[in-house]
Amino acid sequence: LKNKINVGLIGHKFMGKAHSHAYRDINMFFKLPFQVVPHTLCGIGDDLEETAKQYGFLNTEENWEKVVSNPDIDVIDICTPDSFHRDIAIAAAKANKHIICEKPLTVNYQFAREMRDAAKAGGVNNLCNFTYRGVPALRLIKRLIDQGKIGKPYAVKMQYLQDFSISPQFPFVWRMDSALAGPGIFGDKGSHLIDMTRYLLGEFDSVCSMSQIFIDKRKDLATGEMRKISTPDCAMFLAKLKCGAMASFELSNMAAGRKNAFLIEINGEKGSILFDLERLNEIKYFTYDDPPEQRGFRVILATEPEHDFIVNWWPSGHVLGWEHTFIHQIYGFLRAISEQCENESNFEDGAQCQQVVDAIVLSNQRGQWVSVDEIR
Amino acid sequence: LKNKINVGLIGHKFMGKAHSHAYRDINMFFKLPFQVVPHTLCGIGDDLEETAKQYGFLNTEENWEKVVSNPDIDVIDICTPDSFHRDIAIAAAKANKHIICEKPLTVNYQFAREMRDAAKAGGVNNLCNFTYRGVPALRLIKRLIDQGKIGKPYAVKMQYLQDFSISPQFPFVWRMDSALAGPGIFGDKGSHLIDMTRYLLGEFDSVCSMSQIFIDKRKDLATGEMRKISTPDCAMFLAKLKCGAMASFELSNMAAGRKNAFLIEINGEKGSILFDLERLNEIKYFTYDDPPEQRGFRVILATEPEHDFIVNWWPSGHVLGWEHTFIHQIYGFLRAISEQCENESNFEDGAQCQQVVDAIVLSNQRGQWVSVDEIR
Amino acid sequence: LKNKINVGLIGHKFMGKAHSHAYRDINMFFKLPFQVVPHTLCGIGDDLEETAKQYGFLNTEENWEKVVSNPDIDVIDICTPDSFHRDIAIAAAKANKHIICEKPLTVNYQFAREMRDAAKAGGVNNLCNFTYRGVPALRLIKRLIDQGKIGKPYAVKMQYLQDFSISPQFPFVWRMDSALAGPGIFGDKGSHLIDMTRYLLGEFDSVCSMSQIFIDKRKDLATGEMRKISTPDCAMFLAKLKCGAMASFELSNMAAGRKNAFLIEINGEKGSILFDLERLNEIKYFTYDDPPEQRGFRVILATEPEHDFIVNWWPSGHVLGWEHTFIHQIYGFLRAISEQCENESNFEDGAQCQQVVDAIVLSNQRGQWVSVDEIR
Amino acid sequence: LKNKINVGLIGHKFMGKAHSHAYRDINMFFKLPFQVVPHTLCGIGDDLEETAKQYGFLNTEENWEKVVSNPDIDVIDICTPDSFHRDIAIAAAKANKHIICEKPLTVNYQFAREMRDAAKAGGVNNLCNFTYRGVPALRLIKRLIDQGKIGKPYAVKMQYLQDFSISPQFPFVWRMDSALAGPGIFGDKGSHLIDMTRYLLGEFDSVCSMSQIFIDKRKDLATGEMRKISTPDCAMFLAKLKCGAMASFELSNMAAGRKNAFLIEINGEKGSILFDLERLNEIKYFTYDDPPEQRGFRVILATEPEHDFIVNWWPSGHVLGWEHTFIHQIYGFLRAISEQCENESNFEDGAQCQQVVDAIVLSNQRGQWVSVDEIR
Repeated sequence: LKNKINVGLIGHKFMGKAHSHAYRDINMFFKLPFQVVPHTLCGIGDDLEETAKQYGFLNTEENWEKVVSNPDIDVIDICTPDSFHRDIAIAAAKANKHIICEKPLTVNYQFAREMRDAAKAGGVNNLCNFTYRGVPALRLIKRLIDQGKIGKPYAVKMQYLQDFSISPQFPFVWRMDSALAGPGIFGDKGSHLIDMTRYLLGEFDSVCSMSQIFIDKRKDLATGEMRKISTPDCAMFLAKLKCGAMASFELSNMAAGRKNAFLIEINGEKGSILFDLERLNEIKYFTYDDPPEQRGFRVILATEPEHDFIVNWWPSGHVLGWEHTFIHQIYGFLRAISEQCENESNFEDGAQCQQVVDAIVLSNQRGQWVSVDEIR
Repeated sequence: LKNKINVGLIGHKFMGKAHSHAYRDINMFFKLPFQVVPHTLCGIGDDLEETAKQYGFLNTEENWEKVVSNPDIDVIDICTPDSFHRDIAIAAAKANKHIICEKPLTVNYQFAREMRDAAKAGGVNNLCNFTYRGVPALRLIKRLIDQGKIGKPYAVKMQYLQDFSISPQFPFVWRMDSALAGPGIFGDKGSHLIDMTRYLLGEFDSVCSMSQIFIDKRKDLATGEMRKISTPDCAMFLAKLKCGAMASFELSNMAAGRKNAFLIEINGEKGSILFDLERLNEIKYFTYDDPPEQRGFRVILATEPEHDFIVNWWPSGHVLGWEHTFIHQIYGFLRAISEQCENESNFEDGAQCQQVVDAIVLSNQRGQWVSVDEIR
Repeated sequence: LKNKINVGLIGHKFMGKAHSHAYRDINMFFKLPFQVVPHTLCGIGDDLEETAKQYGFLNTEENWEKVVSNPDIDVIDICTPDSFHRDIAIAAAKANKHIICEKPLTVNYQFAREMRDAAKAGGVNNLCNFTYRGVPALRLIKRLIDQGKIGKPYAVKMQYLQDFSISPQFPFVWRMDSALAGPGIFGDKGSHLIDMTRYLLGEFDSVCSMSQIFIDKRKDLATGEMRKISTPDCAMFLAKLKCGAMASFELSNMAAGRKNAFLIEINGEKGSILFDLERLNEIKYFTYDDPPEQRGFRVILATEPEHDFIVNWWPSGHVLGWEHTFIHQIYGFLRAISEQCENESNFEDGAQCQQVVDAIVLSNQRGQWVSVDEIR
Repeated sequence: LKNKINVGLIGHKFMGKAHSHAYRDINMFFKLPFQVVPHTLCGIGDDLEETAKQYGFLNTEENWEKVVSNPDIDVIDICTPDSFHRDIAIAAAKANKHIICEKPLTVNYQFAREMRDAAKAGGVNNLCNFTYRGVPALRLIKRLIDQGKIGKPYAVKMQYLQDFSISPQFPFVWRMDSALAGPGIFGDKGSHLIDMTRYLLGEFDSVCSMSQIFIDKRKDLATGEMRKISTPDCAMFLAKLKCGAMASFELSNMAAGRKNAFLIEINGEKGSILFDLERLNEIKYFTYDDPPEQRGFRVILATEPEHDFIVNWWPSGHVLGWEHTFIHQIYGFLRAISEQCENESNFEDGAQCQQVVDAIVLSNQRGQWVSVDEIR
């Protein structure tokens, strides 16, 4: 085994920053048999050089194909807009690089299967970074469910609410153009909810969706022109899960006052669990195991040594931030490389998620229930 | 105008108790030009006499028709199971009695129209007691919406969650038999959510529903036999509102830890509002009117003199309970009688609500979107 | 035993209203072997007649001595300003009437002992109405402590915060004149905290206090003149309890945004408990009995059948209001009369509380620790 | 100006880790005219080499004097037990190194003045790292107070509650020995509260304290012997502030369920503010500027671009963790070096804080109020 892992990161904006930070900190907090090296930052723009220096990369490159083909590089990390994921990932797989790809894996199920199959053919480790799997509090929810603490799940409610584009003055961005963003909010926010549902409770059976565009034109700051919006501002959908639970979902970029509200409620036969990403160190948990007079939703601060990842960080009660989740996810990926085994949250998960996204988009078009199996 | 109003109350169980309490207290806290007299309590059971004494009624009667035809009685209050509402209300209207009817108004839209039309023909005041219209905090929400504080509504989320029947040992009750309970949870809990939506935001356009029975047999304590359950334990539905908002709803009798969680979230273009009946004196309100650095959901304790009904009760911060809502609703009804005008929350509201319930039931059967207009 | 209990209520303002409501409702919700009759309302003011009618009293009287000497009256209930409590109570005791007296029992420990001794000598039941002992959630706290759930208490924090007089425009009221109000906020709010501490944890050893008058003159609305304020707006004190716990207290009429915040935190060797009167149906409870990964403060909604008094009211989750506490306290008093035994929260409790109040007032003057035993 | 700043860090345990992380990340998120280099890690123990590698230091050293005298090193960062702070800081100042010293500055006011004077004489930048000044939410509180939003402060309540040593099985640690830890919890937790009070509201006038040791012997894991505890487990004190406000404080290592609860409440004439470090991205704020019917405590998530430091991190709603505060504090220090000006939170602040600590310790011994001026 090598004592260094060189990373080529493609995409130097928001997600590129979050991933870069993970590479910077991971060896300080987590034991790995190799040093993780931010080797090459790939992106387009005048700020690439300065960004690379700021993020601690040794090299820059504007052409992603050169990064993929660089023999010094061990891991390709894809943080581009969604529509570029497929080509890069398939090329990386062919070049036998391990691959990290930001969620959603891509823009449709067909592409997702191609990526999954390419990674499998290449024999490389692959991570579709559903980063909230790295939240210790959410992993505690997973643990409680797996231990049977809530019993058979009855009702699942998940929302991902932000308000960043609520002002009509908020400009046109690429995520509002379905040509670039594919299913838009269904892919962007929806994939988070779908993956978390799958992670906690298993597969989807069928879905029924509706959506709206509340502000249909916005100014493109690059051109000064008003551009038509082709992806929804907000969506809601119902789902039936294979475990027998009913589920309801909401996605919004225009929920006033909600800044990063990834909200979960799961009601089961033996208990209930709640979560809000704006208080990401906490869960609320109700169990009938408590004596009747003492029952209530307890607020568990998931920063104890008993909770996942916490011993690597700080003492009890010293809360973690949003960015730590990337370190946890990438740690799982790198550890799997070092142990030559599969990591969780891989392209198979990305593809399964994409199938559900496609079903929702189709339901949204049809105004009818759609079975996930219909998507092939 | 008379100086006494004699009330004949039909039904002496849970709702009968809540209404009786309202009659007992109303003259102490609210100015009316007449004394409200709990005149006759009508019900079936060995406990009727004792209950009447406990509740302060002067007389008892087992036959509701005699109550309706009693010339001394001014107001007929119907607190029976839903399937009896229609016959009693129509008879009362014909006898020119003012009528209070617990929600849901009845078991289907056709019956509801008959009741509405009978009340109109009888020229009597009529109240369909959607009691949560009497919560001061919810009236504050209404006021904020009417003042334009949240602007155009984008997304509405309403849930009514309890857990009373989550145990398989919980016995069979009449609400679980569709023959008696009609649309079951859709009428019982659903009508609360639908009416509150209508009260705050106006009419429904179309709906799409699903539901489940998680425990399909329960013991009938009267017979000791296991009986089949024919009304849902839990339901979810989407709706499109005529105001342009998307809406999502959930009803459950099996949501672990949720004791009386009538939850509301409304996101609009200028702000958002939240409510939870378990903390019924509070709302949460977010507005962009605040300076950017100071924005947040504020918890408003709606017990200030500026809030509806509060000056009739106690000083600021001395919180009200669930039962007060009945006093507020019945006060509105009686005041309207005294002023010879219409009260809000009347049979027209009850009928409109029932139309939506029927649409949801139909959607639930069909597994498809149903337009409310289709229900006639 | 008589089948009617006639109550003579002296004082027809805020507390008079709360007590009147209790008499009105008590027979509906609680089983007693007698009917409670609001017999005579005693007060001074043009509104007495109308108030008596509104509250349901049969008679009115301006002279309290006539009420006390009226042979038809069984219970004397004292809701006057504090400085009148002693004379009325002693006269009532001599007339062998059962006595309810609002807290604080009186204005100093000496008077309190006289009242206690007179009641004892008269052989009458006596209640010093520390009304928060009637909050089901607070009784749950008592139960948990008595069951040893928090173990040895280490730290106690109690606050009673309101903001009613924070505006300089808020007028002079009798509570701001030490001649009428005695120890002012120490008696008014302080007695609530002291009694609750005694109720939950036992006796005080010593205290150390400070206080402030932030607004030293206010307009007397009766005369239009500015009057000097002689009782504190806000006070803080430390205490050592005989159980070994340290305690800290705060009283304020000028805590911005705090409407009726009677806040409690108790940390013990095995757990902690929190309470806020603005959410009076809830407590928060932390216990090390939970598995490490599941520990957290649980919010217990104390409206279950297992909680005190709840079965007399409504189903689970149908929250109670502030006024219910009076019914619970007066029920305990009346039941004790019917069972010819002592009730809790009696004049002995009132006197013990007064002794601590006096110690605090003395400490406040001296700027030093004062032992409660020093007060005789 | 140099393009590199070499840091010599003395102490490689908890605080050493937190500071090391700050050096690692600071250049990625904050613009400085130089690269910050973790140059030498100084500590005692077999794990020094490995820790240095993990933290990214280039060198190790067991003798702090060699670090201080190393001409390559620009900044000395002191993370040792409190009793070593003075000697190291004075030596560093004499060697003309810029100095960071963890709080509390030292173990008594006399030593603190010597350190302050030495730093002044050496002409070096100096930071006493009261790290919570780096919490964006707390800086928002500071801003609101400075803008006059709460007006004249009336009442201040600060608590620092943890439960780490509540179990009698928790072993003896150096902080429990007054010979090493000086004033113990008064220095450790107390200094945090005192500095925050000074930061937000200014100077202390006088204090009155009490404290307790609840568990008086614990096992020394090194020797297996039971050792006597000489520092308090818990303390409470009152204070009068020069601004006129009353203040109350609590410090505890044995508050069940409180993991890292640095709690603040400030009530002023125009508003109130609350804070809890366990939810460190939030404050609660009440203002009378809101219309009466809309008033309430708003929960402000201090992760907007308008809040301090946030633009350097992530988009709105992507919450920060505890460790970020060190980066913010050290950034302020390093920027001041680069701009050749004074930084805030310096040794003068550390000394002022120490004076109050000494007054509290003296009050605690005497059982009396002590004026801060008495400490010289």
